[in-house]
Amino acid sequence: MIKPSILISNDDGIYAPGIYALWEAMSEIGKTTVVAPNTEKSAVGHAITISDPIRIEEVTRANGFKGYAVNGTPADSVKIAVKSIMKVKPDIIISGINAGANVGQSLLYSGTISAATEGTFLGIPSIAISLDALRDMDFSTSKIVAKKIVNKVINHGLPNDTLLNVNIPKDIKGGIKGYQITHQGAIHFEDNFEKREDPRGRIYYWMTGDVKDTDIELESDGVAIKEGYVSITPLQLQMTNFDFIDKLNDWNF
Amino acid sequence: MIKPSILISNDDGIYAPGIYALWEAMSEIGKTTVVAPNTEKSAVGHAITISDPIRIEEVTRANGFKGYAVNGTPADSVKIAVKSIMKVKPDIIISGINAGANVGQSLLYSGTISAATEGTFLGIPSIAISLDALRDMDFSTSKIVAKKIVNKVINHGLPNDTLLNVNIPKDIKGGIKGYQITHQGAIHFEDNFEKREDPRGRIYYWMTGDVKDTDIELESDGVAIKEGYVSITPLQLQMTNFDFIDKLNDWNF
Repeated sequence: MIKPSILISNDDGIYAPGIYALWEAMSEIGKTTVVAPNTEKSAVGHAITISDPIRIEEVTRANGFKGYAVNGTPADSVKIAVKSIMKVKPDIIISGINAGANVGQSLLYSGTISAATEGTFLGIPSIAISLDALRDMDFSTSKIVAKKIVNKVINHGLPNDTLLNVNIPKDIKGGIKGYQITHQGAIHFEDNFEKREDPRGRIYYWMTGDVKDTDIELESDGVAIKEGYVSITPLQLQMTNFDFIDKLNDWNF
Repeated sequence: MIKPSILISNDDGIYAPGIYALWEAMSEIGKTTVVAPNTEKSAVGHAITISDPIRIEEVTRANGFKGYAVNGTPADSVKIAVKSIMKVKPDIIISGINAGANVGQSLLYSGTISAATEGTFLGIPSIAISLDALRDMDFSTSKIVAKKIVNKVINHGLPNDTLLNVNIPKDIKGGIKGYQITHQGAIHFEDNFEKREDPRGRIYYWMTGDVKDTDIELESDGVAIKEGYVSITPLQLQMTNFDFIDKLNDWNF
């Protein structure tokens, strides 16, 4: 069997621990190409770089890790990987392993997801993968999960216009409880802005916030990981609220 | 009748002609507050600023235009407007008038839409409005359309989790043909990267691309504006592909 060609990207940047762990895992099952932002690009949403020139730099890390650092966003990285760096389209794209979960409303801010979105636009089965931890990250479970899910996607394929958003719970006693297919839940940040004065007397603000989650069912992404399950959510990129179209037609514009 | 409180934002920045035109139109029907990025923030997607301090500056333009310039993204602008600048939540949020249509796949890159997305997250009926022109922009039709749609939304309300994406055709002979309720179409950019060498011999790339549109029916956003109709698309922010959940459950993770 020919090894699949796997494109790896992320939004934490090419020097992040998560992309290194993902590279290790994917190297066991495929031929890897790593193309990722040269610096951390969290919360960039689905941004692309249209007004600035894009540069690519080859990067090496320990144990033979080789990749391309892009001075752009996750979406830029996937675009330029597929259109300019790789001679043949990859069989699959995986973005991560992100430091911190991407669940609920935060999906729409996520650079990790935007890399997978871009892959989906390009017609390539794509996966976003995140670990629900911001420090003391242990990627050993995540690596096993990543391999399992990539193999499943290669075997089954994905519908057009659909990507998988995978979130892995923090390492918990006794290991993960299993896999839960979920929907995007209601979990979100209730934002506030903390007002401060700088040393020169000018006002500035920090965005802060508290997590709010009203979901209780295990089929919600945020609940699943809190309960110790790997959450797998199929996301689609068609945003139309088709149910509301008939009503709008009654507004008599 | 009490005039509605209308929050105006955009992604072209507070000095753009489109937001000025929108302010003029909205001033005729409501009490306006303008909060927008201090510079152009196109194609930023749904980015937010979490690692940098945010500053706000008061801005004035001709004929009494007053607003707040934010050194952040469209989403930041709406968040800080509602959470810190305005004492009472606005009745409605409108983002634009964008220079250039936001239809098809490009919705996901759009800062104009992200401002409306943020408003929707905050529970406020929100509208994104764009003119299908990049130069020689005449906003006279757009201003009439904006007022009509804002009045309709104030009368009817919008479902939770749903915003309206409005696109206005270029000024055409005989005026617009009417209003068409649409869905997000397939129109997209087929990207390429143009490779160049800078004066010091270093390689860089420009993102370029051609518009591809396979849609033919008037109910597609891109087709509607090409045919001279104002396109109104209801967009929802729940991204789950619910139809695919049963199939995923059969993958036996």
